Amino acid sequence: MSIAPNAEEFLADFQTMSQFGATGNGGVDRQAASPADAEQRLWFRKLLESRGLDVRYDQIGNEWGLLEVVPGAPYVVVGSHMDSQPTAGKYDGAFGVLAAAHAAFRLQAEWEAGTRPDPTYNLAVVNWFNEEGSRFKPSMMGSSVFTGKLSLDEALKVSDVKGISVRSALDEHGFRSDWQGPKAAYCAEIHVEQGRSLERDDVTIGLVHSNWAANKYEFVVHGEQAHTGSALIEDRRDALLGASMLVVVAREIANSFPGVVHTSVGQLDVYPNSPVVVPSRVSLLLDLRSADETALAEADARLYRRVAEIEAEANVTVERKTAHTWPVMPYQPEGVQLSAKAAAGLGLSYKPVMTLAGHDSTNMKDLVKTVMLFVPSVEGLSHNEAEYTKDEDLISGVEMLTEVVARLSNGELDG
Amino acid sequence: MSIAPNAEEFLADFQTMSQFGATGNGGVDRQAASPADAEQRLWFRKLLESRGLDVRYDQIGNEWGLLEVVPGAPYVVVGSHMDSQPTAGKYDGAFGVLAAAHAAFRLQAEWEAGTRPDPTYNLAVVNWFNEEGSRFKPSMMGSSVFTGKLSLDEALKVSDVKGISVRSALDEHGFRSDWQGPKAAYCAEIHVEQGRSLERDDVTIGLVHSNWAANKYEFVVHGEQAHTGSALIEDRRDALLGASMLVVVAREIANSFPGVVHTSVGQLDVYPNSPVVVPSRVSLLLDLRSADETALAEADARLYRRVAEIEAEANVTVERKTAHTWPVMPYQPEGVQLSAKAAAGLGLSYKPVMTLAGHDSTNMKDLVKTVMLFVPSVEGLSHNEAEYTKDEDLISGVEMLTEVVARLSNGELDG
Repeated sequence: MSIAPNAEEFLADFQTMSQFGATGNGGVDRQAASPADAEQRLWFRKLLESRGLDVRYDQIGNEWGLLEVVPGAPYVVVGSHMDSQPTAGKYDGAFGVLAAAHAAFRLQAEWEAGTRPDPTYNLAVVNWFNEEGSRFKPSMMGSSVFTGKLSLDEALKVSDVKGISVRSALDEHGFRSDWQGPKAAYCAEIHVEQGRSLERDDVTIGLVHSNWAANKYEFVVHGEQAHTGSALIEDRRDALLGASMLVVVAREIANSFPGVVHTSVGQLDVYPNSPVVVPSRVSLLLDLRSADETALAEADARLYRRVAEIEAEANVTVERKTAHTWPVMPYQPEGVQLSAKAAAGLGLSYKPVMTLAGHDSTNMKDLVKTVMLFVPSVEGLSHNEAEYTKDEDLISGVEMLTEVVARLSNGELDG
Repeated sequence: MSIAPNAEEFLADFQTMSQFGATGNGGVDRQAASPADAEQRLWFRKLLESRGLDVRYDQIGNEWGLLEVVPGAPYVVVGSHMDSQPTAGKYDGAFGVLAAAHAAFRLQAEWEAGTRPDPTYNLAVVNWFNEEGSRFKPSMMGSSVFTGKLSLDEALKVSDVKGISVRSALDEHGFRSDWQGPKAAYCAEIHVEQGRSLERDDVTIGLVHSNWAANKYEFVVHGEQAHTGSALIEDRRDALLGASMLVVVAREIANSFPGVVHTSVGQLDVYPNSPVVVPSRVSLLLDLRSADETALAEADARLYRRVAEIEAEANVTVERKTAHTWPVMPYQPEGVQLSAKAAAGLGLSYKPVMTLAGHDSTNMKDLVKTVMLFVPSVEGLSHNEAEYTKDEDLISGVEMLTEVVARLSNGELDG
């Protein structure tokens, strides 16, 4: 492909972005409202302001760059998130935010030059607050509050492990106001795939038509403290043994639905976590995900049968503390069709894909018609410092996003 | 049994002690050099000083109460530890320290009154620093430095999870000097059993003749970060899965040597421990213990065979970071014989027992002849807020310890 006029500028900006919170191993550490995240947000603010966008922070700390072309009209919201996991890749989220900014810059220039007809809607670039959820739970916090799925009060009260609340972490950097954000007309987001399907099929653009179903559970395994040396094995009520059996069972379930059900335990905390004390309490987050709701239901039933067996085998009780479940949910088909036309017009290869991971657009699609796009990710590595997407795919993604946003701004999905 | 003259006083002091760091559920939280531990140490200092003992802190923060009766002679060291696990019983360690103090008070009074012949040795009551090892690792830190098994520099450098070093934690309370502690002639310690054998056999005093052998390992399971949703199951290198399989295997090994081998994992830490990231690194402490060294060796070999299998099954590598192993080690038989005579003289029932748990006396017995005594523990509950020993057994223990210390002070094991 030919490199578009602003490609070099985009890649230079992306390289600058990747320095914020750089780990030294090619990755980044920019947990929500951390010093590195704050530094990057302020850099991004200056970038947007240098192009005349009006930068504002809303009530949950989403960073907005508003381009008002049609006074009083609602906004096409386009963006992603710049926060990251503790040792993360530099593309996840960050690519989508910078792509949104550069799409806005290009459209702004074309509208001003009159080379593209005036739009029906305004444009809002957004850097959603705390998509990752590693420091403050739940994930996708900024878009959840914006779309009314999570109460503002509840979100602001959440604390990290050091006891710092979302409210005070945001206020420390001046990232919060009373404003609820702009009125949205449509939404678009672009992201690296976090999977191998585009790379495998040598396709440049993924058109996300729906997300996998997921059942996310917080389990607390309750046992009883005892001395690790002296307590008789048959007397023990070892919460860590019960929790470990759950982790093993989760994998066994995935293995019995090969390629169809994904399971994981990413977080597990032991109390009192002392070398010489049998643990009395272990909490863990266990997820089951599938594109096949029937398979997911079967996997879920199998999990609960095994939980009951583990309670007996390990002499513990297993409490299900929270459950967060969602079905396979489609993005609006007309958005997928619009994207297919846009890709074809640009001469980019494309195919429909599903997303296994959650995205801010997953929230937004329940509020307004939303387009979600993927670019390929080498070996599908994600949440890993070695995450990598080729420059040419990044540039194609910016081209594609620009075209989609132009069409949404023109009201192509109205009516 | 008849209540000895100072029984009421002992029980009142013990009740006072149990208020320091009280959890409200009958237990205590007095981690080493924490505010509660410091408060209790200062109270104990005043108690010792009120009876004329000379209180000093040595180079690793052991709290000594010196009773010099024979100028220049070495000391019979008697004591235990007052620090505790985060949610612990109130008897573990604390009983032995207070029993040592009251034994010293009684002997002091009898020596002064001339009702007991003057001793050959002086008496040192000791409250060893950081026996539990929950805040600062390793456990038995104070007695390990005193007996030269752990270097002072290494111990002072150890930090807790907040980054506070042993050195600064001790200095905060003025618990440290350049002094190396008194010269020891003999040692005695009394402790609750942390097992059921005395209760089961309705015996009041356990004479510890040896400790169980133990192999303690720190394993680090290495995997690779990935997205918990999107990463294909067959691509995953899930460190938490490998670690969980190790926890389950440890229990399977114990089950195949019923009553003979005890295994445990008390501590396990996950990185990055985020809901949406496949863990890349999990460290855990795995112990195997047995009174039967052959069984322990077989269990150990089985563990390492399974480690190799887990590496293949979970697609991880398992690194053995540290190993701390010890064989079955006897306490000096002449000390056990002396204790048997003492118990018989007092009309207390007794029997030889082993200890599964480590004690400061386990260190001391390699320096000087050492007597270790147990009193019964109801249901053997240990490292548990419900830990309980009857008052009458506590009092019998003080009587027994007093008699043993009197005999050691008289030089009954000399020559």
